[in-house]
Amino acid sequence: MKWFLTIGLVTVLTACGADSKQTASTQAAAQQTYKWKLVTSWPKNFPGLGTAPEHFAERVNAMSGGRLTIQVFGANQLVPALQVFDAVSSGTVEMGHSGAYYWKGKAPAAQFFSAVPFGMTAQEMSSWLHYGGGMELWEEVYAPFNLVPLAGGSTGVQMGGWFNKEINSVDDLKGLKMRLPGLGGEVLSRMGGVPVSLPGGEIFTSLQTGAIDATEWVGPYNDLAFGLHEAAQFYYYPGWHEPGSVLEFIVNQEALAELPSDLQAIVRNAARAVNQDMIDEYTFRNIEALKTIQAMEGIQIKRFPDEVLSALRIETEQLLKEQAAADPMVSKVYASFSEFKEGVTAYHNLTERAYLDLRGE
Amino acid sequence: MKWFLTIGLVTVLTACGADSKQTASTQAAAQQTYKWKLVTSWPKNFPGLGTAPEHFAERVNAMSGGRLTIQVFGANQLVPALQVFDAVSSGTVEMGHSGAYYWKGKAPAAQFFSAVPFGMTAQEMSSWLHYGGGMELWEEVYAPFNLVPLAGGSTGVQMGGWFNKEINSVDDLKGLKMRLPGLGGEVLSRMGGVPVSLPGGEIFTSLQTGAIDATEWVGPYNDLAFGLHEAAQFYYYPGWHEPGSVLEFIVNQEALAELPSDLQAIVRNAARAVNQDMIDEYTFRNIEALKTIQAMEGIQIKRFPDEVLSALRIETEQLLKEQAAADPMVSKVYASFSEFKEGVTAYHNLTERAYLDLRGE
Repeated sequence: MKWFLTIGLVTVLTACGADSKQTASTQAAAQQTYKWKLVTSWPKNFPGLGTAPEHFAERVNAMSGGRLTIQVFGANQLVPALQVFDAVSSGTVEMGHSGAYYWKGKAPAAQFFSAVPFGMTAQEMSSWLHYGGGMELWEEVYAPFNLVPLAGGSTGVQMGGWFNKEINSVDDLKGLKMRLPGLGGEVLSRMGGVPVSLPGGEIFTSLQTGAIDATEWVGPYNDLAFGLHEAAQFYYYPGWHEPGSVLEFIVNQEALAELPSDLQAIVRNAARAVNQDMIDEYTFRNIEALKTIQAMEGIQIKRFPDEVLSALRIETEQLLKEQAAADPMVSKVYASFSEFKEGVTAYHNLTERAYLDLRGE
Repeated sequence: MKWFLTIGLVTVLTACGADSKQTASTQAAAQQTYKWKLVTSWPKNFPGLGTAPEHFAERVNAMSGGRLTIQVFGANQLVPALQVFDAVSSGTVEMGHSGAYYWKGKAPAAQFFSAVPFGMTAQEMSSWLHYGGGMELWEEVYAPFNLVPLAGGSTGVQMGGWFNKEINSVDDLKGLKMRLPGLGGEVLSRMGGVPVSLPGGEIFTSLQTGAIDATEWVGPYNDLAFGLHEAAQFYYYPGWHEPGSVLEFIVNQEALAELPSDLQAIVRNAARAVNQDMIDEYTFRNIEALKTIQAMEGIQIKRFPDEVLSALRIETEQLLKEQAAADPMVSKVYASFSEFKEGVTAYHNLTERAYLDLRGE
């Protein structure tokens, strides 16, 4: 999926965070309390995506002994889903939780820090970001916007989506109306399909009425909650379009700098803990949800044919090369991403992949 | 591998941690500083395993603003590698960093929290521990010893080891002298091999002199540092014996309880951050080390034959069933572990595995 979006009214912002704007000596800072607002692109407490920032706030509150409290807002409670970036950039609020591919209109390289078709898994992305130079590039991309990015969780390898039409060949993609935003949608379009962008709340009805033929969303846990199995019969895998989608925390640069150094470390470590906690939770809940789906009559779980996957990969590589050629920062990030991906593919072919193949037989 | 062990003298322990033993009101506690000692089973700053507890101490120090400082000791600096458990249990020191399979003599179920042949990967183990009931079982196993366990990192899927003899059939395992401790060694023994336990420091010489025919250790990064490529020519995969070895932090129960609640939260969150950071670092460094090994002349990287892997798996299942039948707590932990493994195998067959197969082709 591209994360849940709702289109809503721009809530008039009230002035906030005033008490975090004071500068103070380290001594006084140790006594000072800070109240932050964190806006998200998800409905309040939406499973997985929306609960992660809540867990973040709980961890920060516990570690700071209440010196830094963070109030979490769902989409449209303070700002609409797609204004999270601007709200944090301008300092209207101190933090956000979202997905970097939403901001490709502002910074085309941003999408490499969220989801790239035929890219890397959750574990691989975390290694690239924290050891392979990814975070430094992400910081460089966001610095002009006054934002500090932090990895904010992953859903793991997603499912390929729910279809009301069997996909047996590349020809079956022609004219296929599928809810598939972002780079994946661009690839589908190049193959003759019709990608559609829809907010999460409209997916079920569109699929049920036949307005779309297919949709991707996330994986068993989130898909089941949306009832997509009631509107389509073929559940395809693997999720070639989002193999390791990463979420983001974004922090206003001045707001972060105004915190005493211990609270800055608490913010960074809480994000790191949540970054693993989200994939832990998704893995657990997807196991249970998949069992439920597998037990349903009339649902067929199918793998995309090799021919189709090969064609999608070729189009993806072509698209990414074109985008890199068009923008120097995309070129720089794509080079780092690709080099890491090549190396980790070779390494994981002998380890993760070889082991999962052995065990799964 | 089973983690690096050195056999050394028991250093006479000096009384320590006295200033962390005071109870105090929350108000006073906020001002109080605590100095902890953390003993490990690895040489000081040993790559990956030994640097992780150092990173942990740095994170705690930064987040607590120096209120909780943790001094990290390598094996034999305060206590020998295999006395970490006892030293923390007795309260001689407040914390340790080690691997749970070392303690199977004290608690046979402990090994399920570290490395189980044909078990789960790093990501799967983290999900089982933090959402699937694994941590609660681990706490139950360690409670009689006055210890609180925390997941403390993972090396990822290990390599199968370095061999001076090609393995083409099950018969080639007969009489094979291999450094392979723990459950993996027991499996080898049941198949006619001769498992040998050796501390890390003796592996290279034993392999070079022919005292052993083969050895497993960790993966490209740690193996290269040991120079194992200079003593053997066949590098086998996958690491069926340790697919997702987990490290542990152990905390003395009273020492933890005496901390104010914010510092307790800092300890727990720092461990969680390090738990992901270690696999991030191993992934990155293994990529580079594998490239180096692949470029070496005379080294052959080979997959174990299917016949051999199948036989190893059958023996492993038999061994685990026997161990479960012999101990009620092992039975309880094995049931939870197995149920989670079965579920995550089905889920990852459609996601992680299907995707890695697609990409790696």
